[in-house]
Amino acid sequence: MKIHGPEDTVFLPEGFRFSFTTAGIKASGKPDLALAEAPSGAAAAATFTLNRMAAAPVIAGKENLKTGRGRLRAVIVNSGNANCATGAPGLRASKDTCAALADVLGTSPSAVLPSSTGIIGVPLPVEKILSAIPALVAGLEDGEKALRAFGRAIMTTDLKPKLASASFKAGAGTVSIAGVAKGSGMIHPNMATMLVYIFCDIAASPAALKPHLKAAVDASFNAISVDGDTSTNDTVLLLASGASGVKLSAPGVAKPFAEALRAVCASLAEQVVRDGEGAGHLVRLHMEGARTDAEARLLARAISNSPLVKTAWAGCDPNWGRLYSTLGNTGAPVDPAKVSIAIGPHRVFEKGKAKAFDRKAAHEVLKRPEYTITVKLGLGKGAADFLTCDLTEEYIKINAEYST
Amino acid sequence: MKIHGPEDTVFLPEGFRFSFTTAGIKASGKPDLALAEAPSGAAAAATFTLNRMAAAPVIAGKENLKTGRGRLRAVIVNSGNANCATGAPGLRASKDTCAALADVLGTSPSAVLPSSTGIIGVPLPVEKILSAIPALVAGLEDGEKALRAFGRAIMTTDLKPKLASASFKAGAGTVSIAGVAKGSGMIHPNMATMLVYIFCDIAASPAALKPHLKAAVDASFNAISVDGDTSTNDTVLLLASGASGVKLSAPGVAKPFAEALRAVCASLAEQVVRDGEGAGHLVRLHMEGARTDAEARLLARAISNSPLVKTAWAGCDPNWGRLYSTLGNTGAPVDPAKVSIAIGPHRVFEKGKAKAFDRKAAHEVLKRPEYTITVKLGLGKGAADFLTCDLTEEYIKINAEYST
Repeated sequence: MKIHGPEDTVFLPEGFRFSFTTAGIKASGKPDLALAEAPSGAAAAATFTLNRMAAAPVIAGKENLKTGRGRLRAVIVNSGNANCATGAPGLRASKDTCAALADVLGTSPSAVLPSSTGIIGVPLPVEKILSAIPALVAGLEDGEKALRAFGRAIMTTDLKPKLASASFKAGAGTVSIAGVAKGSGMIHPNMATMLVYIFCDIAASPAALKPHLKAAVDASFNAISVDGDTSTNDTVLLLASGASGVKLSAPGVAKPFAEALRAVCASLAEQVVRDGEGAGHLVRLHMEGARTDAEARLLARAISNSPLVKTAWAGCDPNWGRLYSTLGNTGAPVDPAKVSIAIGPHRVFEKGKAKAFDRKAAHEVLKRPEYTITVKLGLGKGAADFLTCDLTEEYIKINAEYST
Repeated sequence: MKIHGPEDTVFLPEGFRFSFTTAGIKASGKPDLALAEAPSGAAAAATFTLNRMAAAPVIAGKENLKTGRGRLRAVIVNSGNANCATGAPGLRASKDTCAALADVLGTSPSAVLPSSTGIIGVPLPVEKILSAIPALVAGLEDGEKALRAFGRAIMTTDLKPKLASASFKAGAGTVSIAGVAKGSGMIHPNMATMLVYIFCDIAASPAALKPHLKAAVDASFNAISVDGDTSTNDTVLLLASGASGVKLSAPGVAKPFAEALRAVCASLAEQVVRDGEGAGHLVRLHMEGARTDAEARLLARAISNSPLVKTAWAGCDPNWGRLYSTLGNTGAPVDPAKVSIAIGPHRVFEKGKAKAFDRKAAHEVLKRPEYTITVKLGLGKGAADFLTCDLTEEYIKINAEYST
């Protein structure tokens, strides 16, 4: 299995075409409407936000996947407006978008998945989308360039486009998986203002794709946090064209597919955190010795949501006491006498005792663009790896000036 | 009942003396050790942090209250060091402090409550405290000036001392209640890096004081949040000298006492939020229409913990969609179609529909030093009033530079 990052050539799955345009939703005049087309009957699996205030496109998309039994022809994404808190007119706007696109593509509305990202509570100017659809479809192209342009058109506050791809050989065939993501704020486990589209050319049923996507998402997008807010619009979509001719159900294919999918998701998740709003440092939290994996993850989340911990990271401050304190607040059992904490290689707290450590050296670790904080609970075999970032003045600047 | 704020004359309870000194724990050279003395047999009630990483003085204090059956002679508070994550030596340090002070005062160690606030994980220089105790006791004085000095000596990152007092007449007597507090970061429901000492001269048993303190704390210190972190050292102590001669158990006393205590706690809690690290705005969240009060409070906490909401407030940005989004993330049921949101008097979202509102006028409201955000859930009769503040670049500055 090979994995490529955003700067590398893309392992391009067969069977997809992409397009984008400027419909006029973003005030900036940047591209704000993107389309991905799959061959007829492509299999889909998706996970959506758990936020109870789910946006209209999430509601419509779930419904379409159900009605269409997981077969999708296209995904259409607008950026600049979340179409959330927009009531019945918002839901109608998402449905009208699907219907209009289906009409041009000659498919049924349930074969379209709509996505939106941007400001909440502002009516979606759906007529701009509807009038842009014919040109959008006319512009569909295959190839790496088209996929990259699709990835750029879905961005909002992202500084960088996010892209990862992987391929593996299976029998006579080669399977390729390529994913793009957007998101840099409202990033938190159980999805975030994060839209992720993963295209692959394996042949599989929607039902067979589902557990693979779930496992990959749990280990990646559900193990990152930028600011602890779970958005109303999160979507991770996996689309399989079948064009490689390699069947997921064939012997020996499921394992490398799972690995490749996981690698693509892990890379995209890491790119999202690296581009976290205002983030200066990528922090890898390695938790072990919890009673269960779930408790390890709960503790990691608590650390990654603490403004006091995150501001200490921003200041490259080896003030590990703040992290220690957050461990006590989750409801998960912790035994102060068994806890150990390390900053990079520097053990600062060992089984309940503060250790004399080289503060300067620890400060140097914390000045690096990325580093690992290790927390051992000493209670059991539960472990978690979690990615997060610091909280900086830049984050405040970005978010205090977003809508006005 | 009369209530006085920090600028007003203090309604001074009879029977207490106060003292402070500079023991040399704070690097700044500011006062860092404070003592309050009650008459022999004074009744106490206290609430402590729920953080499982509770600091040594919290553990020792709880034990002393139990051993001494709620009778306290003194409270000794050091600032500059939390004596937390300090293991067995830390606990010994707290106990040695109590023993040394008890020795000088001629009482038992269990009649002393120790408190600490400051950095976590650094050994408490207990010898500095022990050698300062004789002078500390020699310096005990009664009067408003001494109480105010006590309040200043317990401060850490606080910009202002916090003080509130109340008095009411009962029969031939007058009961006075005066409280001081410290805390401006790590402030969150269920206590925070917050130390609160409330002195009163009512005559009551420890058991009778307890429910009064619990009710007052729930409505005040447990209904505020600065940054969502619950500290390891939080303590609210209520001490009753009995010197007023008014018995809590006498007819007609419990009600005005509850009101006065609640007013003192509410004032102190509000002062804490106003002095929230870097806070530019005091935000009153009024929640109603939740299924239960507990759910209303849960939703208020979610709002007050969202960096995206708090940064929008910092920017005086009427971007209510962020608040709307946080309502979906608590696990509490919400019906998007029944939610209404108002910024001051401006209704921005009404029963599931965004309202056209005067953005400029809403922006003007958000520019005020304090304002109310009203959220109606439309599901039941649960309500909560919650105090919080915005998240500013100044907060980051303060906290990125704390220990180094």
